[in-house]
Amino acid sequence: MEGPYPRRVHVTDVGPRDGLQNEPQPVPTEAKVAFVRGLVAAGLTDIEVTSFVRPDRVPQLADARDVMAALGPAPEGVTWSALVPNERGWEAAQACGVGKIGVFTAASETFSQRNVNASISETIERFRHVVKAALAAQVHVRGYVSCAVACPFEGPIEPAAVSRVTQQLLELGCEEISLGDTIGAGTPADIAALLDDVLAHVDADQLVLHVHDTRGMAVANVVEGMRHGITSFDASAAGLGGCPFAPGASGNLATEDLVFLLDGLGIQHGIDLERLRAASDVLAPHLGHPFVGRVRQAPPLPWSHRS
Amino acid sequence: MEGPYPRRVHVTDVGPRDGLQNEPQPVPTEAKVAFVRGLVAAGLTDIEVTSFVRPDRVPQLADARDVMAALGPAPEGVTWSALVPNERGWEAAQACGVGKIGVFTAASETFSQRNVNASISETIERFRHVVKAALAAQVHVRGYVSCAVACPFEGPIEPAAVSRVTQQLLELGCEEISLGDTIGAGTPADIAALLDDVLAHVDADQLVLHVHDTRGMAVANVVEGMRHGITSFDASAAGLGGCPFAPGASGNLATEDLVFLLDGLGIQHGIDLERLRAASDVLAPHLGHPFVGRVRQAPPLPWSHRS
Repeated sequence: MEGPYPRRVHVTDVGPRDGLQNEPQPVPTEAKVAFVRGLVAAGLTDIEVTSFVRPDRVPQLADARDVMAALGPAPEGVTWSALVPNERGWEAAQACGVGKIGVFTAASETFSQRNVNASISETIERFRHVVKAALAAQVHVRGYVSCAVACPFEGPIEPAAVSRVTQQLLELGCEEISLGDTIGAGTPADIAALLDDVLAHVDADQLVLHVHDTRGMAVANVVEGMRHGITSFDASAAGLGGCPFAPGASGNLATEDLVFLLDGLGIQHGIDLERLRAASDVLAPHLGHPFVGRVRQAPPLPWSHRS
Repeated sequence: MEGPYPRRVHVTDVGPRDGLQNEPQPVPTEAKVAFVRGLVAAGLTDIEVTSFVRPDRVPQLADARDVMAALGPAPEGVTWSALVPNERGWEAAQACGVGKIGVFTAASETFSQRNVNASISETIERFRHVVKAALAAQVHVRGYVSCAVACPFEGPIEPAAVSRVTQQLLELGCEEISLGDTIGAGTPADIAALLDDVLAHVDADQLVLHVHDTRGMAVANVVEGMRHGITSFDASAAGLGGCPFAPGASGNLATEDLVFLLDGLGIQHGIDLERLRAASDVLAPHLGHPFVGRVRQAPPLPWSHRS
């Protein structure tokens, strides 16, 4: 396939953390562990396994230590990552042997205040020591910028605001910045405007695009991202996570949908679609709803559609 | 929004026909009529209202005459269209005062045989008199080419096969050809390959792209179509129709998702998204499942996202 696409794309599966965190029903620790192992078997090399946040705030991930202990060290070539909100979270994550941490802020002041009760600047200051400590311990650091397109409270967010926070996180030491269209409000025009601004200041390989399929735009937004040189994308197996603002609706881009796209475009990614579909089987009995990912729900194609 | 997109796009809503035909539960005639009226109120000007096929073959649309009678003549600027399989269907459609008919064949011999028990050539011959009669009666004629990307029996379909059938239908007198990715197997690479071939033989304004969201690619495929100069698209309000091969999964591209995309890209279309969402409310009590369209399920954005 000729076209303005990268030869290879890196996929981070955020399903075990960002996905399960937003599922209304709790999932047993053993099922989470089996799910993560299934993702590894499918070829995922970058998996956001859990989050070291307060159990009373995110009860779905209260078993973070147990999950990490059951998983053990990441297999060769695979990275376990975890979200950490503060120094206490970092210490717990380090004790569990994570290979990457994620720290998070937003491009919207209102969202930051409502989400973590702190301004954007305060969240960045809060992470200064965490990032330094992680890098010193040779643990990779990702920074999340949520509301990179729009905020549920403020509405559309200026790309310049995203650029500013992105640069601050990079200056702090973050090695990659995941730009999140948290509420799935963006179309390819928004992604183009966002990346035109951000890429004037940072390199494409420092960025990850984290799009949501809430309004059906996720795959088109990934295509737009690739047209701008982005080669790293977040997705959630089976579309786990749904939309916290609308029960039953879609949230995270489903990893299967992303892989189906990449296969069709002839872009390398290292993930086996059928094994990936199978990885979430273990969760099915524990969710109170069907999977929302399109490919996950559709019958497998009985032929290879790889370009 | 600058970009390689058309200024204006024409949308045909196929929900009342292609959508409801594939719904497992019957919908009362009055609800269908109210639905179509809701689509008109939302700004749709081209609506595939029903199909004049054998009631024993498609019981969901057995009330074709009643629907047309209850609707009455199409409002100024609006076209009621109906699918007709043969001369008898055409006579019924004409008696009901349709402004456009659709005749259908496939780019896959196996699909054609299994769907209508005739070869592609036989279906085209079968339509010769129908098309001539319709044009003589000043009724517009659309030709459908299903399996334009892949066939559930044969697998991937060569673009050249689609080009051949498209040209035959145009020579027959069809004024527009709707190219259908019937099983939603295509990615933007397939759409590009298809259109590169077809557009070497026919003009972009003779084509309509009819994509399915079965595997989440519909919106990205529309974007690819627009990049090739296509300005006319089929969609189904609320994503009606599902996937006949997988209960609960998605089929037709949801009109709301298409409109959301077009709004975001600043492309004119004349449809009001909120009224469009409301149009399918009347169907909700009669379907045995939630709507599958992404935008239809998501909360409305409280701000305008038009470029």
